[in-house]
Amino acid sequence: MTVKRRRPGRPAGSTDTRTVVVAAAREEFAEHGYDAATIRGIARRAGVDPALVHHYLGSKEQIFVAAMDLPFEPGAALPEVLAPGLDGLGERVTRFFFSVWEDPARRAPFLAMLRSAMTHERAAAMLRQFVMRALLARIAAELDLPDRELRLEAAAGQLVGIALLRYVVRVEPLASADVELVVALVAPVVQRYLSEDGQLA
Amino acid sequence: MTVKRRRPGRPAGSTDTRTVVVAAAREEFAEHGYDAATIRGIARRAGVDPALVHHYLGSKEQIFVAAMDLPFEPGAALPEVLAPGLDGLGERVTRFFFSVWEDPARRAPFLAMLRSAMTHERAAAMLRQFVMRALLARIAAELDLPDRELRLEAAAGQLVGIALLRYVVRVEPLASADVELVVALVAPVVQRYLSEDGQLA
Repeated sequence: MTVKRRRPGRPAGSTDTRTVVVAAAREEFAEHGYDAATIRGIARRAGVDPALVHHYLGSKEQIFVAAMDLPFEPGAALPEVLAPGLDGLGERVTRFFFSVWEDPARRAPFLAMLRSAMTHERAAAMLRQFVMRALLARIAAELDLPDRELRLEAAAGQLVGIALLRYVVRVEPLASADVELVVALVAPVVQRYLSEDGQLA
Repeated sequence: MTVKRRRPGRPAGSTDTRTVVVAAAREEFAEHGYDAATIRGIARRAGVDPALVHHYLGSKEQIFVAAMDLPFEPGAALPEVLAPGLDGLGERVTRFFFSVWEDPARRAPFLAMLRSAMTHERAAAMLRQFVMRALLARIAAELDLPDRELRLEAAAGQLVGIALLRYVVRVEPLASADVELVVALVAPVVQRYLSEDGQLA
């Protein structure tokens, strides 16, 4: 499949070409995982020039966000959550997490990734690499703590586990609890993991 | 399918009949969920007398454990974890949880249930009812706290989420961390949820 020359008056983000590139990216990530996937590989699959992939979709992370239909770009959303510093970080992270998961349409792509990861090792690798590069590494960079990756992953585990029990398994009273109560319950734990005072043995 | 009369010298727990009853139980639970499944329904599917279902497999909970191939019976395992009281409960619960999940063969049935729950509402209902009746209700009965069910579910979410990230998605360093370090990281959080001092807003 090749890309037609731009016709006058046609916007750069031609829907057809973008769709083809996004589909190619999805295949490339599924086959090679997040780390090993390349813009060049995506371009080859789509039958377009690598520059065009960049042009339509941006960075590798942005391409992934488009390919997986994620409801936010970590590179854009996280700085806002992180910027005010450690004070209240647990609550901001928890609130941001649930703001996404409370909306069925926005949590769907994460559920889909998790579902695939539970069945296919390749999908697990893709999710793992993306979570580590795009999310955890960014937050870890803001923390000056021993075992910060481990603590971050424990905090992430807390959030993901609550999401599973609330939105998928739907145990009560968690499933019907007001989201503010859930945030009040979980934010101190997340804060503890991200702070010096939550000591490890 | 009917059951043959016991022949002399043949043990009561005839493998064939037991297998038939277990398969029937699996179908009954899958179709009706944990709460609505009945011994009578299982017996009917297996073409045996309800008394025989009890005889081979015991209580409804024990039948579920056999049907789902679970690596422990909550009714037998939990009292030991709970008996010593609130002091150290977080660590005992956490340690028990990881003693099961560290063994690939023992975690497999839980993963299978979780996987099904992520795809089928009926499987989610079955898992939800079992978790609430067999696990959470038993632990909640030992706690004298406001919001104890919600706190318990937050603690359960912590454990399940860590298990997902460690054993399924396998993010590092969590996936390779010594299990004792993981217990040290998580047990205080579980203890906090089960204690008065972890306040809710």
